[in-house]
Amino acid sequence: MNDYVIYLTPALGVLGLVVMAFKSAWVSKQDDGDETMKELARHIADGAMAFLKAEWKVLSIFVVLTMIFLTYSGTITSINGKEIHSHWIISIAFLIGAVFSATAGYIGMKVATKANVRTTQAARSSLKQALKVSFTGGTVMGLGVAGLAVLGLGGLFIIFLSMFAGLGVHQIKTTIEVLTGFSLGAESIALFSRVGGGIYTKAADVGADLVGKVEAGIPEDDVRNPATIADNVGDNVGDVAGMGADLFGSYVATILATMVLGQEIVVKDAFGNMSPILLPMVICGLGIVFSIIGTMFVRIKDEKSNVQNALNIGNWMSMILTVAASYFVVQWLLPDGPLTSRASTFTKIDVFYSIVVGTIVGAIMSIVTEYFTAMGKKPVLSIVQQSSTGHATNIIGGLAVGMKSTVIPILTLGGGIMASYYFAGLYGVAIAAAGMMATTAMQLAIDAFGPIADNAGGIAEMSKLPPEVRERTDNLDAVGNTTAATGKGFAIASAALTSLALFAAFVGMAGIDRIDIYKANVLGGLFVGGMIPFIFSALCIQAVGKAAMEMVEEVRRQFREIPGIMEHTAEPEYEKCVAISTNASIKQMLLPGAIALNVPVLIGFVFGPEVLGGLLAGVTVSGVLMGIFQSNAGGAWDNAKKSFEKGVMINGEMYYKGSEPHKASVTGDTVGDPFKDTSGPSMNILIKLMSIVSLVIAPFIAGIGK
Amino acid sequence: MNDYVIYLTPALGVLGLVVMAFKSAWVSKQDDGDETMKELARHIADGAMAFLKAEWKVLSIFVVLTMIFLTYSGTITSINGKEIHSHWIISIAFLIGAVFSATAGYIGMKVATKANVRTTQAARSSLKQALKVSFTGGTVMGLGVAGLAVLGLGGLFIIFLSMFAGLGVHQIKTTIEVLTGFSLGAESIALFSRVGGGIYTKAADVGADLVGKVEAGIPEDDVRNPATIADNVGDNVGDVAGMGADLFGSYVATILATMVLGQEIVVKDAFGNMSPILLPMVICGLGIVFSIIGTMFVRIKDEKSNVQNALNIGNWMSMILTVAASYFVVQWLLPDGPLTSRASTFTKIDVFYSIVVGTIVGAIMSIVTEYFTAMGKKPVLSIVQQSSTGHATNIIGGLAVGMKSTVIPILTLGGGIMASYYFAGLYGVAIAAAGMMATTAMQLAIDAFGPIADNAGGIAEMSKLPPEVRERTDNLDAVGNTTAATGKGFAIASAALTSLALFAAFVGMAGIDRIDIYKANVLGGLFVGGMIPFIFSALCIQAVGKAAMEMVEEVRRQFREIPGIMEHTAEPEYEKCVAISTNASIKQMLLPGAIALNVPVLIGFVFGPEVLGGLLAGVTVSGVLMGIFQSNAGGAWDNAKKSFEKGVMINGEMYYKGSEPHKASVTGDTVGDPFKDTSGPSMNILIKLMSIVSLVIAPFIAGIGK
Repeated sequence: MNDYVIYLTPALGVLGLVVMAFKSAWVSKQDDGDETMKELARHIADGAMAFLKAEWKVLSIFVVLTMIFLTYSGTITSINGKEIHSHWIISIAFLIGAVFSATAGYIGMKVATKANVRTTQAARSSLKQALKVSFTGGTVMGLGVAGLAVLGLGGLFIIFLSMFAGLGVHQIKTTIEVLTGFSLGAESIALFSRVGGGIYTKAADVGADLVGKVEAGIPEDDVRNPATIADNVGDNVGDVAGMGADLFGSYVATILATMVLGQEIVVKDAFGNMSPILLPMVICGLGIVFSIIGTMFVRIKDEKSNVQNALNIGNWMSMILTVAASYFVVQWLLPDGPLTSRASTFTKIDVFYSIVVGTIVGAIMSIVTEYFTAMGKKPVLSIVQQSSTGHATNIIGGLAVGMKSTVIPILTLGGGIMASYYFAGLYGVAIAAAGMMATTAMQLAIDAFGPIADNAGGIAEMSKLPPEVRERTDNLDAVGNTTAATGKGFAIASAALTSLALFAAFVGMAGIDRIDIYKANVLGGLFVGGMIPFIFSALCIQAVGKAAMEMVEEVRRQFREIPGIMEHTAEPEYEKCVAISTNASIKQMLLPGAIALNVPVLIGFVFGPEVLGGLLAGVTVSGVLMGIFQSNAGGAWDNAKKSFEKGVMINGEMYYKGSEPHKASVTGDTVGDPFKDTSGPSMNILIKLMSIVSLVIAPFIAGIGK
Repeated sequence: MNDYVIYLTPALGVLGLVVMAFKSAWVSKQDDGDETMKELARHIADGAMAFLKAEWKVLSIFVVLTMIFLTYSGTITSINGKEIHSHWIISIAFLIGAVFSATAGYIGMKVATKANVRTTQAARSSLKQALKVSFTGGTVMGLGVAGLAVLGLGGLFIIFLSMFAGLGVHQIKTTIEVLTGFSLGAESIALFSRVGGGIYTKAADVGADLVGKVEAGIPEDDVRNPATIADNVGDNVGDVAGMGADLFGSYVATILATMVLGQEIVVKDAFGNMSPILLPMVICGLGIVFSIIGTMFVRIKDEKSNVQNALNIGNWMSMILTVAASYFVVQWLLPDGPLTSRASTFTKIDVFYSIVVGTIVGAIMSIVTEYFTAMGKKPVLSIVQQSSTGHATNIIGGLAVGMKSTVIPILTLGGGIMASYYFAGLYGVAIAAAGMMATTAMQLAIDAFGPIADNAGGIAEMSKLPPEVRERTDNLDAVGNTTAATGKGFAIASAALTSLALFAAFVGMAGIDRIDIYKANVLGGLFVGGMIPFIFSALCIQAVGKAAMEMVEEVRRQFREIPGIMEHTAEPEYEKCVAISTNASIKQMLLPGAIALNVPVLIGFVFGPEVLGGLLAGVTVSGVLMGIFQSNAGGAWDNAKKSFEKGVMINGEMYYKGSEPHKASVTGDTVGDPFKDTSGPSMNILIKLMSIVSLVIAPFIAGIGK
């Protein structure tokens, strides 16, 4: 056996982390501006850390409880006479998954809250330098996530493999079963970061706007607003840590699901007969290298350069290189001759084709998302138009745009499933997802760049820097809005493909060979599953409302009880607002989180794996639809509102900020806020988490309900 | 063979129609008031007929095209070497289904447009008399629909059975296959009436309000508004004819689906070995009798009596009697000993239990719908509360209520599927639906009473009758709003159960024995199916917007070009507005209609029955969810707005019409209008129509995609 291959993956992870460390150090070395800027940045950084600490406190209770449960489950050797190949060490895998994901989030937040003010300072000299600082900040986040994920998964694989060497034929099965704990840990953090963070960011945003802009009449990002720091913290909590944890979870889960399906392929190869299992890890490891290369292409010449183009070139570069490299990896790793996975027989070149399919699906989903939410395109223009007849028609327009935006992504996804399955069976579906996720480091670098630029603009505004600085940060921020949209498209696509891969892996693990919705109870499961994204969305939306109300009360109290805030003679108590957002968001995410974690366990143990499979299919279909619908409706409303900033032509008349149509567009934007930043993205976590929980319990419910 | 049983069903249908004729004559005999009232009523009646005529014109083209296609398909005797048992006469069954449904709609509209003005006149003397007239009007509609459905289905069954007597073992199979044409015809009319009618009613409503109330500042139901007649016509088109055609379709389809599954049960009995096939027809026939008995209990003593209670008593009466009777029918018709349907074995008492399950599911769905949309209950109160912080929070509140309202209905539906299957297999699921639908005549009587009362109020307002008249019609109208909500719940439940029954029947007809969503292409079908309700809803919502805009233009034109309208010296051109609503609604429903009709054919012939089954499951789950979500959100917004009419207490302060929170609630109501009256109810048609089309093509695609 060519043992060195299994060390390749963690080694590539370490490489990513080393590059990350250099980049992080470079960011820290940059000038962080004058005293005001430093102080604002410190407030934001402190707030972000305060959120993380509060989150970790609740999280640690959750982690301990889950570890007890997993440790116990690891001692079970058979249920209903069926042998189970697990081990109590799954609880340690879970812990490491949670810690690694939390660490990645910590690194991302840390560098983002450093890069923001340094971007502002850099923007005093040039756009080129401002892009360099903000994008390098994003790169640190991307490499941190990808590096830790690959290191963790690859490292644990080596450790568990040698640990279970004595189990003979069950060695690999047990290793992979225990590795599902790592994925569960990672996705649990994503639940807290993405859902809790999503509630946080919108509660702070809405709370700050309602009292600040509407009641007190002060502009956005004004230091006199007690909630303004919480608002800026929210950008980091939701868009940096939340998005990072989301993709960390997808990344790990797709690799794992492909490994689960890979173990079903019986091969003779030079790599311990494990090549189908090793393939997704190696490709994702190499994806880190090509992401690093891709980031080198993200640079501009001068003030007039197109920032969006620079990002696009880097992105396409890393995607094309990864796909090209995976051709050679497939040729090298996989054996010649037919491979058989369940009913499908295919060759190694078919596996490559599946990877290509996955990459194309991801690209189309991103492009469609951008089209439906971009300023100047037909969907947003139609909402602008409908704002002229009032609040209601603006809302109707946005809802219709959101619903319509599901068509192409779903056809793409459906086509992608069929095509990748056609090439390489269920293994093909999973490796397609892995291929798409391989450039996660690059995707996240672009994603995290947005909120850093957004924060930089906020700091420029709050410290009253000259207009050309704000102009440069606005330029970056505008690009950041586009990348936020495409990033969301990528995140939904990744969640959908990940869930499908997990769904396929679940069926294998649960020892069933079909999920027949012609059976009444499986159909019942499908219905109930389809309903869960609706109640989950409703709970998230209401959570934002409740948390925002608490924030409103606090801001009103401070204006009332602290004299001199409005006259700049007293400083507001920023940290109290941060604390309220933090506590409210964590409290409000418990119920939806409990639904996501417990429903699969309940259904699985009462009705067995086939009904649970029906439930998962329902959750995934409905969750992807509701995710696309809500995210895109929200994004479109947002940009419809933004369109009024430069003025828009409706029926031959120009309308600007402050006009009646603009007011209607603000209503849409406010409705869209929880849609696009809380309930919409939380669908990703919901569908993945329920699938992973099902995968973890799969061996234990294998004999139930037959 | 006890031949008389097969004549029982059409005989009960005739009985229903005879009673209907008497009631209809009684309504016609009532006083229709003074000249103004007569003229207004004539305008509304003429407008309604104008809509029907325009609709029928387009419809006839559609019917002829479909008949050509069906006639051709009836000549095919085998595909891919598989025998097909159909006959060109299916096109005649289709034609009769369409004509019967259209006739039922015609009768309903005719009597509703007579009963409205007579109710107004009766309200001049007493509430008791007003209820009697309006409810008798509704009863005519209910008996017309149920009578024609049962007569048509039962009559054609006899004719086809004797026609195919020479086919030996294929006699029953061919008879039932040909009967699917009747169901397809009925549901096609429902597409035009419910979707086209839904677009019509909201386009007229929104158009009338936007120019009349907002721009010209005249009250609702003011004769000076050119669109006011169209608005009142809309109530009849959407709520009477649309709802009637919807339930006509459900009623026929559930009976038919139960017959399809009944034919799979091999029995020896005294009824030509057809008892499982005859059972649903007999129960639904008897349901007509008990509906007639139930209507006799709908009466009040004096002005202070509770109208809602009277309706409830009648409704419960007919439901309980029908369930009790079905116990004896099951005992009498079905043979003793075990019955076997596919994998399930059960006895006749189990079949009765399934019927009970169906009735309970229908009742729970109605109750939940009422809870989520009723004034004074928590969901609506929460929206009222959220109206105090503006338009956006009102919208967010309504969306969250709509999403949350899916939980109990879906759990009920899921539980109902499992329970009825547990008792009597797939036949149990279908007969549960038939049991629930048996009292359709009573349900429709209650449903149609609402818009008649609504119209009566409008006529009272337009003819400036004394306030006590308006008070009485308002009393009826308020009850009508509640029955509209419960009726919608019943319609969704019936559509869902009907689709499930059709789904089960489809699998049998298509010659497959499973729908395995673990297969990638079936899963792809599930995804695409789930998306269709989203695009269908978006198209319906946008259709309302476009049609309303055309209406706005026309009303503006009339105010501009016809001098004297505002001074009551010139009459507006009502019929032009009616024509605009009519044409726009029919034009706008073509694309969604084409999707519903063609997608199953396309998917079925390209990918085969299993993928089509996945598609149908996706459409049904997603369609039921979107139907409940949109209908209930719309209903809740409506009543949140209505709450302000009597004044509401928010945070210790009273708010009335004209206050800022009230304005926010008007926004929600306007968004909710297309939700609750167009896109929401259209989901019923979508899921049923796609299932019926699939059932009709099932024999032809049986061999594809294996």
